Amino acid sequence: MSEKDGATVARTVLQQCLQARLQVKPADEHSEAQFVQIDRGMVIYICFFKGATDDILAKMGHIMHTRVVVNKLIAKKLLELPGSLLIVPQATLGGKAKGRAMQYHNNISKEDGLRLYSAFVSLCQKELTAAAAGATVKHGTYGNRQVLKLDTNGPYTHLMEF
Amino acid sequence: MSEKDGATVARTVLQQCLQARLQVKPADEHSEAQFVQIDRGMVIYICFFKGATDDILAKMGHIMHTRVVVNKLIAKKLLELPGSLLIVPQATLGGKAKGRAMQYHNNISKEDGLRLYSAFVSLCQKELTAAAAGATVKHGTYGNRQVLKLDTNGPYTHLMEF
Repeated sequence: MSEKDGATVARTVLQQCLQARLQVKPADEHSEAQFVQIDRGMVIYICFFKGATDDILAKMGHIMHTRVVVNKLIAKKLLELPGSLLIVPQATLGGKAKGRAMQYHNNISKEDGLRLYSAFVSLCQKELTAAAAGATVKHGTYGNRQVLKLDTNGPYTHLMEF
Repeated sequence: MSEKDGATVARTVLQQCLQARLQVKPADEHSEAQFVQIDRGMVIYICFFKGATDDILAKMGHIMHTRVVVNKLIAKKLLELPGSLLIVPQATLGGKAKGRAMQYHNNISKEDGLRLYSAFVSLCQKELTAAAAGATVKHGTYGNRQVLKLDTNGPYTHLMEF
């Protein structure tokens, strides 16, 4: 399923949204929960696998410029104006079914995962700022539970692996 | 990525939800839009590829009984009580990146896709009725735009291919 011959080192699932809201800090005794929100745009769920390095990031920057055919009628980029981006770290995407259990042995370490995730967020911010005035990039807190609310006019779910 | 040696013939993306609402009939001049809704449970986005036959369905019935490890703390089945199921046909899941375009050449024909989708819905209804009193299976209208609203306490997105 990878773009290249080698093993998959990053998996993303993309969904379009009219609005998406993600918790970035749970409530505690001192403060209420904190959220980020985007309006029309795209949610990217992302998971890195063992073996992923910075080399993969350059390829991944293309995600936002990929042209998608929807309903054989609409040809548009995954991220059109006005389009914002919400990036959701999603380790469960690394799950692999073994019998009736899911295993996550192929997931990258937390340290490397956080580093690549942060670099991916930075890359998206850079790409999007260059492409679309007014669009924003929001992102979840790596390692947290991703409490998400999504409103779509059709999610047009895509899988992209790298 | 497939469970077996052969090519992938069905792709599913699974997300847990607190509530999910899906349009099954758009508004027209005579009537308002119609929706189905589940509360706590799982959303299954599904796409069949060329070569998929009824043989694949028996394997897919296991989806609901797959045990998932989340956050290394919670071990639970994808569908626990009380857990309902919302099945969303999602042809875009068959998209494959070619350069900066997505292509859908590997998707099954609409006729065969509808037949397998209907059979999968029936299978899920049967499996779930046997497993969980009170749980329901709702599903989208094949071929329609899947206008979806999702509220989660963490989607725990999984990919399962068959």
